[in-house]
Amino acid sequence: MSLRSDAEQIYRGALQDALPDEAVRRALSQIDFGGKSVHLVAIGKAAWQMAAAAHAALPGAVADGVVITKYEHAKGPIGELRIFEAGHPVPDRNSYAATGEVIKLVSALTERDAVLFLVSGGGSALFERPLIGEEEFEDITRQLLASGADITEMNVIRKRLSAVKGGKFAQLCAPARVYAVILSDVLGDPLDAIASGPAYPDSSTREDALRIARQYELRLSPAALACLEEETPKTLDNVESIVTGSVRQLCTSAERICRELGYRPILLTDRLSCTARDAGVFLANIARSHAGDGEKLAYIAGGETVVRLTGHGLGGRNQELALAAADGIRGLEKVCVFSVGSDGTDGPTDAAGGYVDGGSAQALEAEGIELAAVLQDNDSYHALEAIGGLIVTGPTGTNVNDLCCVLVGG
Amino acid sequence: MSLRSDAEQIYRGALQDALPDEAVRRALSQIDFGGKSVHLVAIGKAAWQMAAAAHAALPGAVADGVVITKYEHAKGPIGELRIFEAGHPVPDRNSYAATGEVIKLVSALTERDAVLFLVSGGGSALFERPLIGEEEFEDITRQLLASGADITEMNVIRKRLSAVKGGKFAQLCAPARVYAVILSDVLGDPLDAIASGPAYPDSSTREDALRIARQYELRLSPAALACLEEETPKTLDNVESIVTGSVRQLCTSAERICRELGYRPILLTDRLSCTARDAGVFLANIARSHAGDGEKLAYIAGGETVVRLTGHGLGGRNQELALAAADGIRGLEKVCVFSVGSDGTDGPTDAAGGYVDGGSAQALEAEGIELAAVLQDNDSYHALEAIGGLIVTGPTGTNVNDLCCVLVGG
Repeated sequence: MSLRSDAEQIYRGALQDALPDEAVRRALSQIDFGGKSVHLVAIGKAAWQMAAAAHAALPGAVADGVVITKYEHAKGPIGELRIFEAGHPVPDRNSYAATGEVIKLVSALTERDAVLFLVSGGGSALFERPLIGEEEFEDITRQLLASGADITEMNVIRKRLSAVKGGKFAQLCAPARVYAVILSDVLGDPLDAIASGPAYPDSSTREDALRIARQYELRLSPAALACLEEETPKTLDNVESIVTGSVRQLCTSAERICRELGYRPILLTDRLSCTARDAGVFLANIARSHAGDGEKLAYIAGGETVVRLTGHGLGGRNQELALAAADGIRGLEKVCVFSVGSDGTDGPTDAAGGYVDGGSAQALEAEGIELAAVLQDNDSYHALEAIGGLIVTGPTGTNVNDLCCVLVGG
Repeated sequence: MSLRSDAEQIYRGALQDALPDEAVRRALSQIDFGGKSVHLVAIGKAAWQMAAAAHAALPGAVADGVVITKYEHAKGPIGELRIFEAGHPVPDRNSYAATGEVIKLVSALTERDAVLFLVSGGGSALFERPLIGEEEFEDITRQLLASGADITEMNVIRKRLSAVKGGKFAQLCAPARVYAVILSDVLGDPLDAIASGPAYPDSSTREDALRIARQYELRLSPAALACLEEETPKTLDNVESIVTGSVRQLCTSAERICRELGYRPILLTDRLSCTARDAGVFLANIARSHAGDGEKLAYIAGGETVVRLTGHGLGGRNQELALAAADGIRGLEKVCVFSVGSDGTDGPTDAAGGYVDGGSAQALEAEGIELAAVLQDNDSYHALEAIGGLIVTGPTGTNVNDLCCVLVGG
């Protein structure tokens, strides 16, 4: 029971730190605006929360601002900020119009101004304004999708057709300084990829763009071709980026809480990407090896596993990972394995993840549930439900991937 | 290149320590026979090597002895020791006869005698003498195989029908002291399971045996039934067991060599049992997270992964694990992942395992080899061969499972 309560403290605490409000407050404590006039621009699915948190944390300091989030994601007015809702995952006219408002706002800034740029997942669709006609822009997107170009190649083209992507937003803000505060939903936090990097130098070249256009035989107007020939910024000297929410930070928070609870934390990885089932088995293998060490240990992994579909049951990657660990830790007295999605919704279920301990395998048998069959059917939800192994948090309003943990109780 | 040479030093050194000769010498250095007359009994596939090593390490001290190994595994005479070859994996009349010689040898011993009992994999078939008629013994084995009983249940019955299993060999040796030196090929070194535990207390009860006989409706003679009713030893006060070769020790040796090479070793597990492919991905995830730590790190895992067959190519679990890690460490400059089988033969190939580094994914592309397709076809051998990624040691004469390792070059 105390192991379960330790687990709960760890994931609740780590998720708390990953919430937009907390993440923004933490980032702002590192920024000194030096008395400049602060203009707020927030984009992404968490834009409203991030903007509200920043506005509250900087009383009277925010001069004006624009918030662009997904439909039904704005929760009400925030001071004088202008709030727009727009299309996601496909940008729409509202994306273009709202982004136009941002461009107007930042284009007039001077060295006495600062831009607080709050970025979260989904920003790529919500923050967009084509440099060419909207119809041609959408036609080129369709051509790319049909061409077989991969996502990296598509982004090389799209960054060049956009007024704000690939570092161009930061260029528009100059000479004002940009403080980018980033809630990352991409493993490894590649700043040129999150929201297509509006305030980050672009590493692709015009040669790359022209080669891709030739290779996939894109039909382009002279205006579009001219965009591809235009180089994106390779350096930006007016930007400071702070990644404040990310799976790495989720892991770091978990490490801190583990330490407070007397565990020695060992961060395995914040780039977990294997199948959920085998991640569970591997974590159980680790648990079994160290169960007799006589030390309180916490092995931590963050990332996003993959469910290999072999059945039609109900579950999610976190629940499947936990359930897959049950057999490997069978009979171990002071060991648990849990996995939880930071957004609070694991797969199409109302659970955030799953928890198993050394008694779970036997508990499943007592319920007449055959572990191997349930895993084969991807039906982790019902199995965990039957033994009280579901982790339920409700939607959290953030998404920085998943946290997996093995606790060895010493 | 220096990473490759570090890898080679690590696996060659660890395999060296796991060789029967070295393992036996190490164990003998911990044993004080106190001037007693030493009788040697060696069983298993490595029995000849273990006996030869012990005989050489104890010059003049071994009074007599019996060696039982698999057909074609004896390499010549060893002093006065009597050497027998017998059936494996199914025991045969030669197993029974040779085991009879061992029983004769140890039954006459006194407190002034000591038994050096050298145990390796395969001992279960090679060291066997039924307490009932051979025909009925073999009939009951057939009944068990046809019944659907699992391996644990079968062993509960077989230990009771055997004159030497389930601790009974050690009982026969009393009052002589038994020093059991064990080369383990079973994950977790369960001493009651290796060679069916001739010198280890049995945890199953007569009630278990009778329940299994009823459940599977075994046809038993009164003599066989009497055997099942006989309790196996629950304690043994004349035995000292030393596990000298095992996957745990393979990992410990690797840790030591890593330390000597300036790496900080982190033992993940010595119980690895997930699929080869996902173990490779997980290890690559670990590598990518820590590649920037600025510290020389070695993550070590021992065990035996499983190949999920999805094609018809050539390979083995170690080669598949290494190849599956190639994409995840793509482009990392000072990172490698390798996996090697301690017996020197990985799957039906002449390689012992595989090695990949940050350049391997690109090297494969340069050879026109598509990584995902090769993995899907289980054809790791040819892919690794093309990029110089095979690890070849030749057969080693030991089997203590596999060693997998991630090196991060700092």
